[in-house]
Amino acid sequence: MSRTRVHNLFVSSDGYAAGEQVTFEKPIGDAAALFGRFDGRVIDGVHHIDEPVTVDRALFSMWGQGIGAEIMGRRKFGPQQGAWPDDGWQGWWGDAPPFRTPVFVLTHHPREALYFDNGTSFHFVDAAPQEALRLAQEAAGGLDVRLGGGPSSVRQFLEADLVDFLHVAIVPVVLGAGVRIWDHLAGLEQRFTVESISTSSGLTHQLWNRNPR
Amino acid sequence: MSRTRVHNLFVSSDGYAAGEQVTFEKPIGDAAALFGRFDGRVIDGVHHIDEPVTVDRALFSMWGQGIGAEIMGRRKFGPQQGAWPDDGWQGWWGDAPPFRTPVFVLTHHPREALYFDNGTSFHFVDAAPQEALRLAQEAAGGLDVRLGGGPSSVRQFLEADLVDFLHVAIVPVVLGAGVRIWDHLAGLEQRFTVESISTSSGLTHQLWNRNPR
Repeated sequence: MSRTRVHNLFVSSDGYAAGEQVTFEKPIGDAAALFGRFDGRVIDGVHHIDEPVTVDRALFSMWGQGIGAEIMGRRKFGPQQGAWPDDGWQGWWGDAPPFRTPVFVLTHHPREALYFDNGTSFHFVDAAPQEALRLAQEAAGGLDVRLGGGPSSVRQFLEADLVDFLHVAIVPVVLGAGVRIWDHLAGLEQRFTVESISTSSGLTHQLWNRNPR
Repeated sequence: MSRTRVHNLFVSSDGYAAGEQVTFEKPIGDAAALFGRFDGRVIDGVHHIDEPVTVDRALFSMWGQGIGAEIMGRRKFGPQQGAWPDDGWQGWWGDAPPFRTPVFVLTHHPREALYFDNGTSFHFVDAAPQEALRLAQEAAGGLDVRLGGGPSSVRQFLEADLVDFLHVAIVPVVLGAGVRIWDHLAGLEQRFTVESISTSSGLTHQLWNRNPR
């Protein structure tokens, strides 16, 4: 049974999960404070760094476990809006994007797919959540599908009740502005069982598991 | 830098980490109460089961990350004592032991190595901890070495200060008897930085990271 999973979604105390404006200079907008405790080096395993194995890092390391495809919003792929300019943009990640699976980028402006030597490919689809998920599950070959964000796309999938697992890290910072994650989701907790723990870094990790249907 | 790691070491409130007697009928001795919260299905990733992703399971899933070899005590391999009987014993695990790496079994009675199709091999060595670790590191090809237990061998490696990372799960049960893990280790905490969290299952996870030398 292929699950749809969200990992390492950082949310401020006031409910923001990304900055308002994304530019080439500021890939995460004005939300740097959100990601100060995130260690992206361990998303595929705690052995990738020569530093202490912490509970935070152990939880971050689930990101790649059993994932066969990702779905991401357009703003995670790049800051462009509207029709794609002819700028050679291939995402933020250089020659070896960390995904190493097919990635479906949600956009109203489909374009040619991009392929990388390490197994990553980007497919640009103008699709509703259900249809995007169907494509990703097909590509995942029985493995799970990761919803990679940003928060607007995660929220859409939560509204459509398509998320089976959601790992939220609550960060004790107050952003005051940005992209809100919990809008239009009143009562969301009734569909999930939620486990919370806090770690010495100050993060509170919430693991939301969808209740059996 | 290859690290030496211990994962999923279950310890009772009174400091026991295994039963006293191991027999063919009771592979873990009289210590079943220790392992009731352990989910061995997720040692290579939380995606291996169709059940909720919990903090316990996330921590158990570090077991295989970046591991290139294991060292285990003889009692983990089998209940035999003294010279090996000619009984065809190949360990508890059937045709596909979960290790999928070379495994070095500490014994005073060396015997022929065993090889399995899934990449697991058992090598029987009469060696002190330092020497066993050297062999395992060589076999691990730059990856980390896991100390697989039982507790007596883990304690020996701790006494010899050869352990870089130790994941202990404290189980709120009182066994009254068994193999003690903390003997001869007074002051152990001074060589480590310890992070503790408790989860809704009642387990307390301690992550012991060796301080820089």
